[in-house]
Amino acid sequence: MKIIIVGAAGTIGKEVVSILARNHDIVRVGSRSGDVQCDYTDPAAVQAMFEQVGQFDALISVVGSDSVFKPLYETEEQDYRYGFERKFLSQIRLLRLGEQFVCDRGVFVFTSGFLSHYPHPMSSATSPLNAAIDAFVRTAAPLLKRGIRLNVVSPAPVVEPGRQGRGLVTAEEAAQFYVEAVEGNATGQVLRAWGGLPVVTW
Amino acid sequence: MKIIIVGAAGTIGKEVVSILARNHDIVRVGSRSGDVQCDYTDPAAVQAMFEQVGQFDALISVVGSDSVFKPLYETEEQDYRYGFERKFLSQIRLLRLGEQFVCDRGVFVFTSGFLSHYPHPMSSATSPLNAAIDAFVRTAAPLLKRGIRLNVVSPAPVVEPGRQGRGLVTAEEAAQFYVEAVEGNATGQVLRAWGGLPVVTW
Repeated sequence: MKIIIVGAAGTIGKEVVSILARNHDIVRVGSRSGDVQCDYTDPAAVQAMFEQVGQFDALISVVGSDSVFKPLYETEEQDYRYGFERKFLSQIRLLRLGEQFVCDRGVFVFTSGFLSHYPHPMSSATSPLNAAIDAFVRTAAPLLKRGIRLNVVSPAPVVEPGRQGRGLVTAEEAAQFYVEAVEGNATGQVLRAWGGLPVVTW
Repeated sequence: MKIIIVGAAGTIGKEVVSILARNHDIVRVGSRSGDVQCDYTDPAAVQAMFEQVGQFDALISVVGSDSVFKPLYETEEQDYRYGFERKFLSQIRLLRLGEQFVCDRGVFVFTSGFLSHYPHPMSSATSPLNAAIDAFVRTAAPLLKRGIRLNVVSPAPVVEPGRQGRGLVTAEEAAQFYVEAVEGNATGQVLRAWGGLPVVTW
């Protein structure tokens, strides 16, 4: 398969590339690196990226890790809009524009995050957008034409030196969920890379 | 209690007023009717409304029923932004601005909707924002100061002549959930007025 990975230079993205490159042709997309450089929040840049890459079989979006993290009482309206535009709408745009270029039975994979279900005192502007991405995937996946599939991986934070917290995953553990989302047959699924945390449901 | 009801002239809002007026002082807010007229999507108008009303004990928001309802392939970026601004951010603004005027141990009640968990082929721009509101409430409620509470009612569509569909509720049934959200002791809860539908969880 020809697989576009947006956010290929990120912590999880690098692992996804590393695993999938063994069996697939990878197009690495990053804002300042990769096979194609593209600001994924810029509609014109995204359109140009798709035109340059041409037909593809799968797109994995590993973006949005630059979330707003502020105490509730310091979170401004612009912080909510920032998350909406970058985490939510930019990923939906990858589907909307990419749908013209993906082959029949192709697959899109988004990224949300475990804060939808495990909120944090600083995540008032992030948890809601993670939940929104999950809900979009469940709503839109059954409506896609030509057998196109859509899944989302909801990762917990990745293990880093000094990082504390529950549910941490290694980048390789998280990457395996993206591989499954592409190589499996599921659609409309939220794959939870929650590092052993109970799957609370809401 | 002095209770502000935003959207007091709506189908559910009228029932909420009718029930709560028996035991409380109600301030009805509507865009073109009520004790105070206010476009709830306009920050300056909302601020002016709070200054006019002064200190209050509870605010119930029954807004956002003018959701975008379009097939996925016809849903534009502006449709997602419309729902984000009106359903999501406008309700959060009621909390952000109202927090200066609510008394200790006051309560805010938002409205989301069952499309978060029961998606519809036309709800790609609505289901995600409903989910976002629920997630915001769960994230923010434990962070509120002065014992302020925050809940959300997630109603199914209200029974109307000719309306078909699963889970329909009467306006009075839905209104009882708002009453419980105010008069009960819960906070951070999603009260599901789903007309007998199973409570699926995600």
